[in-house]
Amino acid sequence: MSAFKKLVDHSQKCSHFNHLAAICGWDQASMMPSGGNQARSEAMAQLSVHIHGMMTQPQLSDWINDAENESLNSEQQSTLREIKRNWQQANLLPEKLVQAKSLAGSKCEHAWRTQRGENDWVGFEKNWREVVELSREEAQIRADFAGLTPYDAMLDIYEPGTSSASLDTLFSDVKTWLPGLIDQVIDKQSTEQFTAPSGKYSTDKQKALGLEVMNLLQFDFNHGRLDESVHPFCGGVPSDVRITTRYDENEFVQSLMGIVHETGHARYEQGLPKHLSGLPSGEARSMGIHESQSLFFEMQIGRSDEFIGHLAELAGQQFSGNEFEKSNFQKIYTRVEKDFIRVDADELTYPAHVILRYEIERDLINGKIKHTDVPELWNLKMQQYLGLSTEGNFKNGCMQDIHWTDGAFGYFPSYTLGAMYAAQFMASMKNDLDVSSVIQSKDLTPIFNWLETNIWSKGSLLTTDELVKQATGETLNAQHFQDHLKNRYL
Amino acid sequence: MSAFKKLVDHSQKCSHFNHLAAICGWDQASMMPSGGNQARSEAMAQLSVHIHGMMTQPQLSDWINDAENESLNSEQQSTLREIKRNWQQANLLPEKLVQAKSLAGSKCEHAWRTQRGENDWVGFEKNWREVVELSREEAQIRADFAGLTPYDAMLDIYEPGTSSASLDTLFSDVKTWLPGLIDQVIDKQSTEQFTAPSGKYSTDKQKALGLEVMNLLQFDFNHGRLDESVHPFCGGVPSDVRITTRYDENEFVQSLMGIVHETGHARYEQGLPKHLSGLPSGEARSMGIHESQSLFFEMQIGRSDEFIGHLAELAGQQFSGNEFEKSNFQKIYTRVEKDFIRVDADELTYPAHVILRYEIERDLINGKIKHTDVPELWNLKMQQYLGLSTEGNFKNGCMQDIHWTDGAFGYFPSYTLGAMYAAQFMASMKNDLDVSSVIQSKDLTPIFNWLETNIWSKGSLLTTDELVKQATGETLNAQHFQDHLKNRYL
Repeated sequence: MSAFKKLVDHSQKCSHFNHLAAICGWDQASMMPSGGNQARSEAMAQLSVHIHGMMTQPQLSDWINDAENESLNSEQQSTLREIKRNWQQANLLPEKLVQAKSLAGSKCEHAWRTQRGENDWVGFEKNWREVVELSREEAQIRADFAGLTPYDAMLDIYEPGTSSASLDTLFSDVKTWLPGLIDQVIDKQSTEQFTAPSGKYSTDKQKALGLEVMNLLQFDFNHGRLDESVHPFCGGVPSDVRITTRYDENEFVQSLMGIVHETGHARYEQGLPKHLSGLPSGEARSMGIHESQSLFFEMQIGRSDEFIGHLAELAGQQFSGNEFEKSNFQKIYTRVEKDFIRVDADELTYPAHVILRYEIERDLINGKIKHTDVPELWNLKMQQYLGLSTEGNFKNGCMQDIHWTDGAFGYFPSYTLGAMYAAQFMASMKNDLDVSSVIQSKDLTPIFNWLETNIWSKGSLLTTDELVKQATGETLNAQHFQDHLKNRYL
Repeated sequence: MSAFKKLVDHSQKCSHFNHLAAICGWDQASMMPSGGNQARSEAMAQLSVHIHGMMTQPQLSDWINDAENESLNSEQQSTLREIKRNWQQANLLPEKLVQAKSLAGSKCEHAWRTQRGENDWVGFEKNWREVVELSREEAQIRADFAGLTPYDAMLDIYEPGTSSASLDTLFSDVKTWLPGLIDQVIDKQSTEQFTAPSGKYSTDKQKALGLEVMNLLQFDFNHGRLDESVHPFCGGVPSDVRITTRYDENEFVQSLMGIVHETGHARYEQGLPKHLSGLPSGEARSMGIHESQSLFFEMQIGRSDEFIGHLAELAGQQFSGNEFEKSNFQKIYTRVEKDFIRVDADELTYPAHVILRYEIERDLINGKIKHTDVPELWNLKMQQYLGLSTEGNFKNGCMQDIHWTDGAFGYFPSYTLGAMYAAQFMASMKNDLDVSSVIQSKDLTPIFNWLETNIWSKGSLLTTDELVKQATGETLNAQHFQDHLKNRYL
């Protein structure tokens, strides 16, 4: 058996265990009663150890070396590249550091769940100090290996190929026009009248509506489900994608568009190349590209005039009231407000939240600032970008996100990269298709075919830059994002 | 570290993987869309191979030998006994035979799902021949190891310590009085009037009713759930027990009592000793004892006058109609009929179905009859025990059950052993408690305390005979079952 074939078999074995982890993880978040948590966590931890053991088996090194000298076609070369990358990532960190960071992260995150509500920065800081230290240690090891700065080495986990140099360029450009645009739009919307949701919207009807919308978006229910969880997510495996939402009987706005968003993630997973199933080359390209698909669904399709019309029509079959008029839907779903909380932010202010976090975590991991500097910097930047003060308001400031509590530094930029890629894909798609008419027709097949051909079916065969260039003729160009925002909001 | 401690650690590791298998198995039956089946089956197969690999690690042999010479308390000795038994079972069969039987069984079972409906004995026989041959091979290996007859070695998988000699004695006694009793009861009931369910009983209301009944039976919803599946079962793990039912909107009878039955299985699991979690000594004693708990709930509690009253009252809160009168419920749930299908059989005719299967599978595995003799023998015995002919009627005869299709020979006796144990437990409990008053009071705690003390908390620390003797003062005594049936039905 060739070394490459051995690697393929090994990778597929690992993927079976990852499958079990994905399903049991979904179950833990959406089905499991709380009394089951301890035994489940122990079982999942045992599984992680087993998977890590498989990923670091000593013979993999030889197999990879040998495979690199075998004659492989281009697809096989991509597969080998991704297998090697995963193997490097798994072997990079000393087990002791992985365990220490996992423990410190769990401890910090667990305490944060109550500390946040209590605005307890002092308590949080005590746990977080260790998470930051261990994350810097991790970043340094990754940096030494990859020949990058520490923060760029963390970025590379989520967005292979992206650097802070390119993000600095992108984001400093955004900062030149975004604050002004936000003010302009808020001013324009200040006289707008709309009916806010008020009343009881039953979970059953919201769910029925969500399923209708998923059908319109051609979610494949033979390979997936919709369920409920406290924090909505897209999980499972490509052959069986599990998305979740959270219903609030006082309003329908978040859950409804949340389902559109998660359906975007889900269709990417469902559309990944089946002949590469179980191989890293058959997986999603990066967090940014994943987010580009959810945001394509949510922002590019979901908030288009035509789709808003369909949403209002479908909602009107379940509910009645002025709030379900199309024009009211449009106003609700394009409302811009300066506020503290990223996860509740609208499309226009969202990048400001991300850029703020990017700038802070970049300097924090590169050792240019101390973790105790974060609240002040947060307040400063929040005033600069959104005109809001967070002085003393830790819970709605630097303590609001889960990401930093367990050391996931480098993740935040993916959100805005995703929004930018989504706008670029739409601009390119419009050269090929009359997108508005397609959405209007309620048969969105041509749109999904474009995404499947250009994004989903590529898995991780191409690098992100190659993928985006093949799909749109150029690498990331943030002008499309700016054009999109101006076009929609001005 | 002592050898015993090493075995305990190893057993707990294995139990984590068994946890994942249980949850993913439950998901496969109750949640998974059909398109997810191939990848799931592959992942589950990989997990089975991994667990089997753990159970047959070469060092276990030394550890067991060493542990047998260590100084262990009585509980540790029981744990070691069960660990050794599991290890022997895992090592007994050549991997080739396990794989061949698994393949032949899957093939036969899969084809059977359509062949049964088509009454296609000829097609079925072609696949089943191999299943029987491989099962005989398995039985012979087990028999040689254990010094038992082939069939007794298969029985030992499900009911350690039970022999066909004792079953022959038990069942031949039952055969002397059961057919006459059945005729007597049918004659007595022939003039009874009752209102059969007819109408639409919505799934939502049936589910609400089921949850109420589970509450009455003190199912712990912090450690378990109720869901739906085509074939109802009790799965999951002791800290998170998953029971399922199947709703039919044309009737409520089966689903309602099915929930009572599965709740019995579930409370046994939920009541297993927590300090032995992850060890085989902390698991359920046997299939017969498991069934004794589900049948204790279904037959001893569930069909008691007092509980039938509660059921009727709870059902009356969801539905209305004459069929929900207590006296009507009593008649519905104690109706006796001679019929072909075991899974639909009432309490009184059920043992006849089991004894028939026992006698056939015993002789089949011991090589006294050929697999092609089965339809004729089935017809003969069905006429003898229930006065029904199955000549040419394979689908309602020997092709009706799933058990034999994949070679689970030796399982059927557990059903009737369970019914007998349940009757014996109730007879004994009645010496300690005024059971009728307890049920009438709607607070069944004293009953569950008795079961917890005498059965659930014992796990597999005792042998079945020891367990039953400690709980009731005697080993299995079928007279209690006969008394129970006469008392209820005459």
